[in-house]
Amino acid sequence: METNNSLSSAPLLPTINSPEDLRKLQPGQLPQVCAELRQFLINSLSSNPGHFASSMGAVELTVALHYVFNTPYDRIVWDVGHQAYGHKVLTGRRDSFSENRKLGGLSGFPNPDESPYDTFAAGHASNSISAALGMAVASKLNNDMPRRNVVAVIGDASISGGLAFEGINNAANTPNNLLIILNDNDMSIDRNVGALNSYLAHITTSKTYNDIRYKAFKLLSKLHLISDNSRGSILRFNNSLKSLISHQQNIFEGLNIRYFGPFDGHDLPTIIRVLNDIRDMEGPRILHLRTIKGKGYAPAEKDPSTWHAPGKFDPATGRRLEKAPADNEPIKYQDVFGNTLLELAKNNENIVAITAAMLSGTSTATMQAALPDRVFDVGISEGHAVTFAGGLAAEGKQPFVAIYSSFLQRAYDHIIHDVALHRRRVTFCIDRAGLVGEDGPTHHGAFDLAYLRTVPNMTIASPRNEHMLRHLLFTAQHQDCGPMAIRYPRGKGHIADWRCDMHPLQIGRGEKIADGNDLAVITIGPVADEALKAISMAAEKGISVALYDMIFLKPIDTAILREITDRGLDIITIEDGTINGGLGSAVAEWLEDNNISGCRLTRLGLPDKFVPQGTPAQLAQLCGIDAESIFNTIVSLASEKNNSEK
Amino acid sequence: METNNSLSSAPLLPTINSPEDLRKLQPGQLPQVCAELRQFLINSLSSNPGHFASSMGAVELTVALHYVFNTPYDRIVWDVGHQAYGHKVLTGRRDSFSENRKLGGLSGFPNPDESPYDTFAAGHASNSISAALGMAVASKLNNDMPRRNVVAVIGDASISGGLAFEGINNAANTPNNLLIILNDNDMSIDRNVGALNSYLAHITTSKTYNDIRYKAFKLLSKLHLISDNSRGSILRFNNSLKSLISHQQNIFEGLNIRYFGPFDGHDLPTIIRVLNDIRDMEGPRILHLRTIKGKGYAPAEKDPSTWHAPGKFDPATGRRLEKAPADNEPIKYQDVFGNTLLELAKNNENIVAITAAMLSGTSTATMQAALPDRVFDVGISEGHAVTFAGGLAAEGKQPFVAIYSSFLQRAYDHIIHDVALHRRRVTFCIDRAGLVGEDGPTHHGAFDLAYLRTVPNMTIASPRNEHMLRHLLFTAQHQDCGPMAIRYPRGKGHIADWRCDMHPLQIGRGEKIADGNDLAVITIGPVADEALKAISMAAEKGISVALYDMIFLKPIDTAILREITDRGLDIITIEDGTINGGLGSAVAEWLEDNNISGCRLTRLGLPDKFVPQGTPAQLAQLCGIDAESIFNTIVSLASEKNNSEK
Repeated sequence: METNNSLSSAPLLPTINSPEDLRKLQPGQLPQVCAELRQFLINSLSSNPGHFASSMGAVELTVALHYVFNTPYDRIVWDVGHQAYGHKVLTGRRDSFSENRKLGGLSGFPNPDESPYDTFAAGHASNSISAALGMAVASKLNNDMPRRNVVAVIGDASISGGLAFEGINNAANTPNNLLIILNDNDMSIDRNVGALNSYLAHITTSKTYNDIRYKAFKLLSKLHLISDNSRGSILRFNNSLKSLISHQQNIFEGLNIRYFGPFDGHDLPTIIRVLNDIRDMEGPRILHLRTIKGKGYAPAEKDPSTWHAPGKFDPATGRRLEKAPADNEPIKYQDVFGNTLLELAKNNENIVAITAAMLSGTSTATMQAALPDRVFDVGISEGHAVTFAGGLAAEGKQPFVAIYSSFLQRAYDHIIHDVALHRRRVTFCIDRAGLVGEDGPTHHGAFDLAYLRTVPNMTIASPRNEHMLRHLLFTAQHQDCGPMAIRYPRGKGHIADWRCDMHPLQIGRGEKIADGNDLAVITIGPVADEALKAISMAAEKGISVALYDMIFLKPIDTAILREITDRGLDIITIEDGTINGGLGSAVAEWLEDNNISGCRLTRLGLPDKFVPQGTPAQLAQLCGIDAESIFNTIVSLASEKNNSEK
Repeated sequence: METNNSLSSAPLLPTINSPEDLRKLQPGQLPQVCAELRQFLINSLSSNPGHFASSMGAVELTVALHYVFNTPYDRIVWDVGHQAYGHKVLTGRRDSFSENRKLGGLSGFPNPDESPYDTFAAGHASNSISAALGMAVASKLNNDMPRRNVVAVIGDASISGGLAFEGINNAANTPNNLLIILNDNDMSIDRNVGALNSYLAHITTSKTYNDIRYKAFKLLSKLHLISDNSRGSILRFNNSLKSLISHQQNIFEGLNIRYFGPFDGHDLPTIIRVLNDIRDMEGPRILHLRTIKGKGYAPAEKDPSTWHAPGKFDPATGRRLEKAPADNEPIKYQDVFGNTLLELAKNNENIVAITAAMLSGTSTATMQAALPDRVFDVGISEGHAVTFAGGLAAEGKQPFVAIYSSFLQRAYDHIIHDVALHRRRVTFCIDRAGLVGEDGPTHHGAFDLAYLRTVPNMTIASPRNEHMLRHLLFTAQHQDCGPMAIRYPRGKGHIADWRCDMHPLQIGRGEKIADGNDLAVITIGPVADEALKAISMAAEKGISVALYDMIFLKPIDTAILREITDRGLDIITIEDGTINGGLGSAVAEWLEDNNISGCRLTRLGLPDKFVPQGTPAQLAQLCGIDAESIFNTIVSLASEKNNSEK
C-alpha cells in the first residue's frame, strides 16, 4: 500500500485494537492511520466534548511512539494527559472512547487503573519527567531484560514548572536511559539552528558527543551557514535545557542530557527515523519536536486557545455549539470574579492579580485586558505565584491570586511559609472548588477547605451565590487580618442580575437563610442552594428545617453554633469538600470542645476517597450532597428523632 | 586608617549599631569589620550554638551589601536565613545576638516581625527570588523614588529548587530591577572563564550587552586565552542561569537576565566595586560569587558539612563539645531510622531510599554508605522526591522517602496526585515531626498529621518510641495498602537498647498502655511518654487514668474508641501537631458521627498559631503537652467531674 494521506484506501484504524496491530503495518501506511485518527477525534469530540487541540497536535507523535516502542513493556508517560486521546484510541479504547469523561467511562487523562498503557497520573502538569525518571531508574535497578525504555512526553508550557526543572536536574545526576520528548507548540526556531540540530541528531553513540558537536559547529561556521549572531543562539538553545541539568553539580561537566532537534513533529517519517536512532542510546536524552496545536483542523489551528477544550461543535464547519448566555441568564462564577476584580482594581491601585497559566480559565483575563501592568500570568508555577504574591504584599500591594483549587495544592507550603506566617494580605481566589465534573479526581477541588483550615492566620470563606462572591471580594480588599481564601465553583451560578452593589461582610459572621424548628442545616458555599431545595421538600412533609450559611469556615461563627445548640436542634453540615477536616470537622470540634450533648451532628461532604468523573449533578448525588440526598438525610434524621422521642 | 585584617586597631564592630554607622566608615576599614564580625560569630556561636559555616562564608557579602545598598530602604532577601547572622549583628542586634534561637530571643532566621532589615521569611529554601521579585515589581508599580533596590541572596543548593527556577523564569518576563546574588560555595570555576566574566562585569548599560559579550569572546579566543573546549563551557555557563529564564518564551530572545561573575566572594574591594557598578542598572541581574563555607575558621573550612550547625565548641581549638552517646545511652530517632532502613534494605532489594538534601539530617546516609546505588539524594526538591518515588513505586520498587515534616509541605500535591491517587506503595518517613525547638515556626512539623489525614488512601502512623519506629518501618515494608506515612521527632528517644527484633503491626490497631477508671488519655507518637508521667502523678493524687497509644491516626482504631466510650470515660487526646485536623479532630468526628454523649473530649496539641522557637521542653509546656500540663488538665477534669457528680 502506498503512502496515502486521504482516506481512499480501506480504513486502517478499525483494525488497530492494540499497538501490536499498529506495529504490523508498513511505515507507508502510517500517514493514513494519522489521518483516520484525526478524523476519529474530530467526529468523537464534536459530539462528546473534551480536550481537542492538544491531542490533534500529538497525532504523529502518538503513532510514532507506539510504532517504535514496544508498549506497554516500554513506558510512555504523558505530561498533562489531554494530549493523550490518540494514545487511548490506539491502545484498545477506540470503542469506549465515546464514553470519554463520562461517569463510569474512560478517564479524560491517562489512568493506570484503566489500562496498562497508561503508566502514571497526568492531571497536574510538569510531573512526567520525575515520574518517568523513577520508572527508568527502577528498570535499571531491576535489570529488566530486554531493556525497558521509558519516555516522558512534556509540553513547552509544562516544562516551565519547577517540578519539571527538578526532574531534569535529577535526570542528569542519576544513571538512567530516560527519553524526554519536548512537544513544543510555541517556539519558533530559525532554520540554521534546525539544520545544525538535524545534523546532530544523526550522530551515534560511538563518538564523543562533545567532539562532534563542536566539529559540526566549526564546519557550519566555515560554510557561513551560521552567523556569529545565530551562533550564540545555537549554543544558548542547545544549552537551555541541558544547562538546567548541570548547574547544581559542576556546571562544566554539563551536557549530561543529549539534545536532539528541533524536528517537525508532524513529519512522521522523520520522527520515526529519529526515534529509532536514539531509542537504544545510553543515558538521558531530550528530543525536541515542533508541533501545531489543533493540527489538521483549520479552525483549531487558527485559534488553539479556544479549541483547547471547545465544547460541542459542528465538525463540518467548526461552528462551536455552546451559546453565550443571554443577557437575562446567569454567567459563570469565573466571569463574576473577573468583572468584579476589575471593578475593584479600577478603584484601588494597590490591587494586583496573579494567575498561573489560568488567565482565561479564571477570567483574570478581564482585568488583564484593561490593566495589563497589574496582572501577572506566571505560567505553570503555582508555588512561585504564591510566594511572588507574598513579596508584593510585603510592599503594600494587595494581590489577588486566582488558581484552581486542585492546582493550589502545589503551593501549600508557600501559603504557610511565604504568606500566612507573617500575615501577608494576599487573597486566594480559589477557582474550581468542589466537584468539577468531567475532569475527574485529579481536578476536583476537594481538599482546600481542609488543608487551609490547618493554616494559622488564614481566613477562609465561600460565597453561596454570585452576589456573595462580590461581597467577599470587596471584604477581602478592605480587611486587614492577613491572608484570606475565597473558594467558588466551576461554572454558572443562579443570579442573572449579578451586578449588585458591594458591601463589606463581617469576618467570621454567617447568616440565617431559613428558620425551622426540627433540624438545622449548616452549609458553606453554593451547596446552600441544594439545601434550600431539600428544605422546601421537607417542609412539604411537615419537617421544619433551619438553614444557616456560615460564609466563613474560619473563623467559624460560634454565635450561630450557640444559637442552634441552645435550641437543641440536631445539625446537618454540608460542604462541597472532603469530609475530613472541613466544615463538618470544625463543627464536631466545637461541639466537643464545648461539651455539648443533645445535638446530634450529621456530616455530609465528599467521601474520604478520590471521587470519579461525571456530570456535577451525578457526582453531587454520588456524594450525597444534592437536594434529593439531603432531603433523604433530613427525613431519616427527623423520623429517627421522632421514634426516639416516642 | 589603613586596611587591616588584624584586630590591632580600635574595635569597630561595637560602634556599628546600624548599617548607617557602617556606611560612615572608609572602604579601607571594612576588612577590619569583617575580621571582627567573624570573631564575634565564633565567640558567640561557640557558646550559644546555631548555624555557623554559612554565615562565616557570607561575611564579606553581608558587609558589602549593607555598605553599598541603602538598607532598610533597599531590600535584602536572604534565601535560607542561616547565612544571615552577620546581617543580624550589623543591623542593631549585636547585643541581643546572645539570645539567638532562644525562647523570646532573636529568631535564627530573618524575621520581618523582628526587624525592618528582615524583609521576608527565610526558613524554607529557594523562595528568595520569587519573594524579591514581588518586592521589586511592587516597587516599580509604586514608583518609589528614589528607586528602591531589591536583592535576593541565594545559595547554590537553594537555586536547584523548582521554586527558584520558577522565580528566575518569571524574573525574565516581568519588568523589574531585581538583583540576584548567587552565593556559591560549591562550584569550581576555571580561571579563563573568570577572566572573561570579570571583563564582562565592567560593561556598562550604555552598550549592547550582546555585542560586547561576543566581542569579548572573539578577542579572548584570538589571544588564545580560551580554548575551543572551554569556550563551550563559557557559553554554557553564561547561559546556564540565563537560559533558564528564557526557554519558556522564545529561547532566542534570551539574555534577559544579565550575568556577572564569578568573583571571589571574600574579595571585599571587588565585591563592593562590582555592586556599585551594577547597583543602578536597569533590568534583572545575577551576580555570581564564589565563597567558602566556614571561611576564616580553619576547622569549619575543612569540614563545612559538620560545621553547618556544629553545636557548642571551643573557639580556640575547634573541638566540638557535643559528645556522642555512650553505648548504654539512647540514640537519635534519626539514627534508629537510618540503621533500621539499612537492615530492611539488606533483606529486600526492592527497598530504595530518597531524600532531598537531608542525607545526614535524616540519617539516610547510613544506607547510602552501604548501598549507594539504592539511595537517591535529589537535592532541595521535595516535590520531585515524592513524584520520583511514585515512579519507582509504579515499577514495583518500595521507596522510603525521608523528608522533614515542614519541608514535606512542599510536596503536598505530589503526595495526593502522584502517590495516593493510584495507591503507590511509598513510605513517607517524616522526620522533625512536631516541635523541633530552636529552629522555630518555619521548622516545626506542626501540620503533617492534619494535612495528610485529608488524603484518601493514606495510612498515617507515629511511633511512641524507638522500638515502635522499627516495627512501623517493618510494617510499611510488608503492607500492601498504598502509601504510608511514619512521623517521628527530632532528637533522642529513651531506649538505649533500641535494636529489637521487628514484627509487623496490624494497620489501624492501637495499644492500651495503662488502664484506669477515671479518664482515658489517647495519644499518638512519643508524647505518650509525657502522658505516662502525668498519669503517674495523677495516680499519686488518686486519679486513675487509662492510656491508649493509637499508633495509627488513619485508619483510626475505632475498637479502642468504642472500648473507652462504652466505659463512659472522658477523653483527653494529645498530639504533637496542630489542634485543627489531627488526632483530636478525628476523635471528635468519631464521637459525633456515632452520636456518643457522656464522654467529654478535651483536645491537647499545638495551638492554631505559629509556635515560636525555644527548647523543646519550653515549647511543650507552652503548648500544654508536657507532663506537668497534662497532669494539670487531668486534675482539673477529674475535679470538674467530681463536682458535677456530687
